[in-house]
Amino acid sequence: MSATKLTYLALPGLAEGIRYLLHYGGVQFEDERLTREEVAAMKEKLPLGQVPVLQIEGKTLFQSQAICRFLAKRFNLTGKDEWDSVQCDIASDTIYEIRNAYLTFFHEKNEAAQKEKRVAAVKKIDFILGKLEGHLAKNDGHFVKGQLTWPDFMIAAFAEHINSRAGQDMFAAKPLLSALRDEINALPAIKAYIEKRPKY
Amino acid sequence: MSATKLTYLALPGLAEGIRYLLHYGGVQFEDERLTREEVAAMKEKLPLGQVPVLQIEGKTLFQSQAICRFLAKRFNLTGKDEWDSVQCDIASDTIYEIRNAYLTFFHEKNEAAQKEKRVAAVKKIDFILGKLEGHLAKNDGHFVKGQLTWPDFMIAAFAEHINSRAGQDMFAAKPLLSALRDEINALPAIKAYIEKRPKY
Repeated sequence: MSATKLTYLALPGLAEGIRYLLHYGGVQFEDERLTREEVAAMKEKLPLGQVPVLQIEGKTLFQSQAICRFLAKRFNLTGKDEWDSVQCDIASDTIYEIRNAYLTFFHEKNEAAQKEKRVAAVKKIDFILGKLEGHLAKNDGHFVKGQLTWPDFMIAAFAEHINSRAGQDMFAAKPLLSALRDEINALPAIKAYIEKRPKY
Repeated sequence: MSATKLTYLALPGLAEGIRYLLHYGGVQFEDERLTREEVAAMKEKLPLGQVPVLQIEGKTLFQSQAICRFLAKRFNLTGKDEWDSVQCDIASDTIYEIRNAYLTFFHEKNEAAQKEKRVAAVKKIDFILGKLEGHLAKNDGHFVKGQLTWPDFMIAAFAEHINSRAGQDMFAAKPLLSALRDEINALPAIKAYIEKRPKY
């Protein structure tokens, strides 16, 4: 079997969920962390000119959510039936909306416009996190009631990055999301990974 | 069994892929098309304050991609194994990047900035469509070789909207994408739907 290799930047971003799942599943892999310049230099060779890219069992996968769902199926993290599975997909798409929200200001070059967009984005992120918090309240603190599923890992993996981009602790007033994040981060494989990962 | 009902705006946008799949699967459903004002008025009642929302078998589903994947599984449109399935997910995420690209200028209020962003977005959309065209070339003109899968429906359902937002025919120099779109649009259930749907 060919070696498993994840290629991304030296930050959590779109790869941290993949890293969490690979560690949870006990997969030995090369966690390649490149500079933006190194990624730019290999752009032509990348499937869509972007990272993350996962090489696994001789195949090259891209699109972070697609990779996470693929791994989640392998590690029985998609629930017990089609309804659980669609709940996972809904939750993951909603978590990615948070990322799309902070992208609206992150790439804005005009300073005044960036400030204005950041305020709107933080408001939107708080709204989405509030909806997720409400969902957890009805499902015993998990995205799918009574089960550990892959969006639980996604929110934990994204949490630090969300806070960093927003410039504030967006989870402070979200006790259930905070508890879920802490629960995932306390899983032995994830805890071991966090302790040894490079500082962001 | 409770009635199936899709709620969205009176445009293709994020719902057209769902409409295509429901028609393909022969599902009888109410295709509710609201004005922006009507959606705004019911915002509080919507799961994430937004549409599309699909009510099916007593459940309320949201997030358009999650809904499409759910329907695709029902109608055997996710390929034969986990590798086909992840190819479908990669393709669908990539098609949604096109939408994210045109959103960058669509909501920009500053006229000069919108013009500049539109040029960048059209360039990015053309780049992504070029990558998809290359993928089709290696897979007999489908997203998963030798099989009809749900991203085939997604690109066909999105095509008109992409062109409308870009203000030009982005498929003109993409013969394989154009042929795939035409193949899907010629399927009896899709053809019948297109003939009777409201003009956009």
